[in-house]
Amino acid sequence: METATAAPAPAPYREGLPPQPPGPPDGEQHFTSSETVRDLVIGMADGLTVPFALAAGLSGAVAANPLIVTAGLAEIAAGCVAMGLGGYLAARTDAQHYQAERKREEQETLDYPDREKWEVAAILHRYGLRGEVLQRATDAIASDRKRWVDFMMRFELELSEPAPGRAAQSAATIGGAYVVGGLIPLSPYILLAETGLALAWSSALTGMALFGFGWLKARATGLPPLRGAAQTLGIGGLAAAVAYLVAKLVGG
Amino acid sequence: METATAAPAPAPYREGLPPQPPGPPDGEQHFTSSETVRDLVIGMADGLTVPFALAAGLSGAVAANPLIVTAGLAEIAAGCVAMGLGGYLAARTDAQHYQAERKREEQETLDYPDREKWEVAAILHRYGLRGEVLQRATDAIASDRKRWVDFMMRFELELSEPAPGRAAQSAATIGGAYVVGGLIPLSPYILLAETGLALAWSSALTGMALFGFGWLKARATGLPPLRGAAQTLGIGGLAAAVAYLVAKLVGG
Repeated sequence: METATAAPAPAPYREGLPPQPPGPPDGEQHFTSSETVRDLVIGMADGLTVPFALAAGLSGAVAANPLIVTAGLAEIAAGCVAMGLGGYLAARTDAQHYQAERKREEQETLDYPDREKWEVAAILHRYGLRGEVLQRATDAIASDRKRWVDFMMRFELELSEPAPGRAAQSAATIGGAYVVGGLIPLSPYILLAETGLALAWSSALTGMALFGFGWLKARATGLPPLRGAAQTLGIGGLAAAVAYLVAKLVGG
Repeated sequence: METATAAPAPAPYREGLPPQPPGPPDGEQHFTSSETVRDLVIGMADGLTVPFALAAGLSGAVAANPLIVTAGLAEIAAGCVAMGLGGYLAARTDAQHYQAERKREEQETLDYPDREKWEVAAILHRYGLRGEVLQRATDAIASDRKRWVDFMMRFELELSEPAPGRAAQSAATIGGAYVVGGLIPLSPYILLAETGLALAWSSALTGMALFGFGWLKARATGLPPLRGAAQTLGIGGLAAAVAYLVAKLVGG
């Protein structure tokens, strides 16, 4: 996700702002991954890893593909609902939390205006404003209650307003990614009869998927792709190895 | 987590800042849950829900506790490693991302100082600064490169610097919470011989744990506790019901 930040605001908004000087020729290249990418990564990473590791673990303890498929599908269903609905609630909670804090902050500007003005001044002071400029900048911000509260929300509490409809979209993205991710390692156990062969295919398929997924994830955040791919692959392999050992110890 | 925000900064830092006017008698009550609480919630929510749902699902398809325990422990191991290491890498990635963006932003203040100054002005303009005050406030911020870059990181890119050592702590918290959460629903299958009875105990124990956990989670974010408890319980129940149905359909 490459987004050129500081995109031009609508014209009336810019009244009194000097014209924009030229910047880097191809815009500023900052990597800020969108929340959808984040949700995809959450769902896909766990969806690829946990069902793969569970199936691999059970392969060491029980050599019966139908049973492994039953457990694997039950896990995918459970993980999809738990993570999807978990994401839904987390996003809803964020939105409610933002509203509650905003209301509290607004009340504070009514009950303790001097204190809240002072807090604006304290933030600007941290960035080098002093004396008359500090005073006048604080007054300008506090002259409009909405802007004043906006400023406190963002710069004192570091909260940004969640986008509406975020919760449902987040749930669908995480849950869907989990199912898609989980069916990759499980498909060989569904299609093949022999457990050893299914485990080999599952490892190969999941390994490629983890590698490619790690690569793309690293690129999306502007980090070295090869390292990202190796790390993601390593987590999946380690999780599977531990699950295999545990299942072997308990059930083998 | 109740933290009184805008805690007094060390004295030399406040040079040129007017004295602080009185605020609410017991400090400002904002709820900002710490990152550790967030990690605990992530690990515990999935750890309680997914192993419970998997075991419940398998109870519908196979009536053999040793097999359910094997699958459950393999899942807990896989989930602990996948989520713990996933949390580790996510935190490491955040830190690397912050450093990379900071370097890029610093370079921009060297290569395109006018443009970067204009971006500071555009942000302050949004909060109501105009004319001479806007000009002088922008100059004050841009007079010190570290402060200037600090300002852009926080207010243009909305990135805060991750705490050092965060990654390892995050991994341990998420992974540990997953194991603790997962052993609650699984313990009846370990201790009891009959699957139906184990399922009943597992449901009761997990139900209570989800309810209590949802209650505490809601309190930590300042939202209605009863609703939080009911929601968390609902997710666990729904995940288990879907896993049960899937396992019954596939394996029953």
